[in-house]
Amino acid sequence: MIGNVLVAQSGGPTSVINASLVGVVKKAKELGVRRVLGGLNGIEGILQEKLVDLSIEHPADLDAVQYRPGAVLGGCRYQIKDPDPDGPELQQVFSIFQKYQVRYFFYIGGNDSMDTAQKIHTGAQKLNIDLKVIGVPKTIDNDLFGTDHCPGFGSCAKYLITSVVEAGIHTASMYTAEPVTILVTVGRNAGWLAGACGLARREKNEAPHIVLFPEIPFEEKRFLEKVKSVYEQVGGVFIVTGEGLRNKEGTYITARYDGLSTDAFGHPLLGDVPITLKHLIEENLHLRTRWIKPDICQQAAVHMASRVDLEEARLCGEKAVQLAIQEGESGYMVTIERVGSGAGGVSYASRCGKVPLSAVANVDRYVPRNFIDTEGFFPSEEFLQYVKPLIQGEVPIRMKDGFPYYPNLQLKHVRYSE
Amino acid sequence: MIGNVLVAQSGGPTSVINASLVGVVKKAKELGVRRVLGGLNGIEGILQEKLVDLSIEHPADLDAVQYRPGAVLGGCRYQIKDPDPDGPELQQVFSIFQKYQVRYFFYIGGNDSMDTAQKIHTGAQKLNIDLKVIGVPKTIDNDLFGTDHCPGFGSCAKYLITSVVEAGIHTASMYTAEPVTILVTVGRNAGWLAGACGLARREKNEAPHIVLFPEIPFEEKRFLEKVKSVYEQVGGVFIVTGEGLRNKEGTYITARYDGLSTDAFGHPLLGDVPITLKHLIEENLHLRTRWIKPDICQQAAVHMASRVDLEEARLCGEKAVQLAIQEGESGYMVTIERVGSGAGGVSYASRCGKVPLSAVANVDRYVPRNFIDTEGFFPSEEFLQYVKPLIQGEVPIRMKDGFPYYPNLQLKHVRYSE
Repeated sequence: MIGNVLVAQSGGPTSVINASLVGVVKKAKELGVRRVLGGLNGIEGILQEKLVDLSIEHPADLDAVQYRPGAVLGGCRYQIKDPDPDGPELQQVFSIFQKYQVRYFFYIGGNDSMDTAQKIHTGAQKLNIDLKVIGVPKTIDNDLFGTDHCPGFGSCAKYLITSVVEAGIHTASMYTAEPVTILVTVGRNAGWLAGACGLARREKNEAPHIVLFPEIPFEEKRFLEKVKSVYEQVGGVFIVTGEGLRNKEGTYITARYDGLSTDAFGHPLLGDVPITLKHLIEENLHLRTRWIKPDICQQAAVHMASRVDLEEARLCGEKAVQLAIQEGESGYMVTIERVGSGAGGVSYASRCGKVPLSAVANVDRYVPRNFIDTEGFFPSEEFLQYVKPLIQGEVPIRMKDGFPYYPNLQLKHVRYSE
Repeated sequence: MIGNVLVAQSGGPTSVINASLVGVVKKAKELGVRRVLGGLNGIEGILQEKLVDLSIEHPADLDAVQYRPGAVLGGCRYQIKDPDPDGPELQQVFSIFQKYQVRYFFYIGGNDSMDTAQKIHTGAQKLNIDLKVIGVPKTIDNDLFGTDHCPGFGSCAKYLITSVVEAGIHTASMYTAEPVTILVTVGRNAGWLAGACGLARREKNEAPHIVLFPEIPFEEKRFLEKVKSVYEQVGGVFIVTGEGLRNKEGTYITARYDGLSTDAFGHPLLGDVPITLKHLIEENLHLRTRWIKPDICQQAAVHMASRVDLEEARLCGEKAVQLAIQEGESGYMVTIERVGSGAGGVSYASRCGKVPLSAVANVDRYVPRNFIDTEGFFPSEEFLQYVKPLIQGEVPIRMKDGFPYYPNLQLKHVRYSE
């Protein structure tokens, strides 16, 4: 009797977060685990005993649900704040784990979620509870420490690159009327996704012309000069930007408009970077400026997911189970190690590794300076070579009545009496 | 000697505008036209004699370029304002047409462009110039008069529906943290695209839950009650809206914020509908609200174009040539007539017809009241049956290095001396 497995998904979903889930479930069943439980809405739902039985799902349904957007089990934005294993939240977690005979806990998420996983791991150790905790990386932001890249990033990049290629060709045919376009990617502190969009430019003068990284301090004058120079040379300008641009003093550039109005949560109503940039460009250069905000479409576009990304996501789930059940490890996050660079004639290859959760929790990984060109307005060739292997290959999508059909699991709730 | 053909593209491009162009070019060559000229950037470029020779393009290249975003010849936002055929602009047009022996002019565009086509047609008639002018419909807005639907609409709808399905599943897994999402479609006066997104809802409680039509006066209180009611029932709310919502007095709802700030063109900086709706919802219902603005991605997403739409777009181009060259007609726009409804077991079928340009120019076609349900917050079943056949089938896309590759034509400039 191995003991039960509990797996949950946390944070904002990616296009491949369900592939990691399926990796965990199938590997656990393969290793003879009788019962694989799923926690709904991450640790938030687990604390409310919202559990489903994933063991009864049909293998073919599990395979199909890998290609479903969102988190099949639901995500959450909830973190365990208790630093103390004797605190009420952790106590409740351990009590629920005991009730459902959970000996292995797998948490699929980003760095906030790894903090929660780490707290559960150390809590269990201190209290001598027989529990193995492994984190499975997930984030389109690609900002997790200790891994070459994060599952979810490649698919998001592939969708955004496709969008830049298509919108770029479109806008180039309309430069005479609408010369400037801005596309804003997710990424408040790290410019991984904005930078990846540089791949869209196959030929000189193609979009994107300017990429703005949160890592590079924003200088209004230099930016406007760059826009003007591209406009004069190309006839139009396509800009990709991350969400969080700051000036040299560290103030978000949207702050300039913060005084005007705020929403019910106190967020500036004018706080969106593309609106601020549009304002700057139209005010100073008098060039009409459009903007695109794909927002969650970039996290959810399974129809343009990367096969490489999806396969790695599933492997990360499998590796987590292997670490916990076969190797008896706990307190680690699975990582992806690049063993073939994918550049300079070397074919791309990767394998899974591990890093202590304590090293990952609440740490951000930024785009290194050598991944950005000298001028600071475009990714370097090294960055592009880094991204390229991660967006390769497509995934099978079932079209029904003209648009994608994404199947779901049964998600049968577990009652304690069972 | 038939005389030369001139074809140009105008207004904002659609995913299938190049299929119409290819339809014109191939049909004209088939009918023995020696020279098919292309005008760059619509009438604006024609006035500057920016012409290319499309006769020399390879047939295989023409086939491939059907699946290219943007307008291969470039679009424009320029209209001939001259109401008088003796005016300088029309005189210049006719002088250029004479210089290049243009006897057939095909203008691919929306209702503004049909106005320009109409002016050229009546001007030629009054001046006894031997010129046949036919308009080819193009607009994602689907707001052209006299046609069942417009080439470009189906592909745009297919992409938006896909986005709503994917983002809808994504948000449903995050309702506990981020309950409300708004997606804004193109459509300032007509809600064709917003309404089409209703197709995304295959099952009760799926996205979208609310569709806001520019045709229905916006009532703040009723809207907020609806959002609250969906939230209480479903746990989250997915709203699709057109760009231009007005209250009963006809004032745009964004006007509430117009006083705060304007851009360099005098447009309100807060004028975006989703920002206004977000503000309303967060202020009154305290529900965190995200929003998505696909903007030109919806016009350019050839990777999710509709095969039915693309084929009809090409047929419209072919029909235009047939009307002008074979039937000697002038002053018409090609239309699409639905001869098989595609509903209630009747399979969908369409054929091309014609309508006088004078009836189309500058006229908007709105979503009829029976296409919207009684409550006014969702398309009716009739609307959904209308849209369904138009989004069917996929188009072949060439993937290269992990993202679409869209080939172009040579676009060899014509010099007069040739």
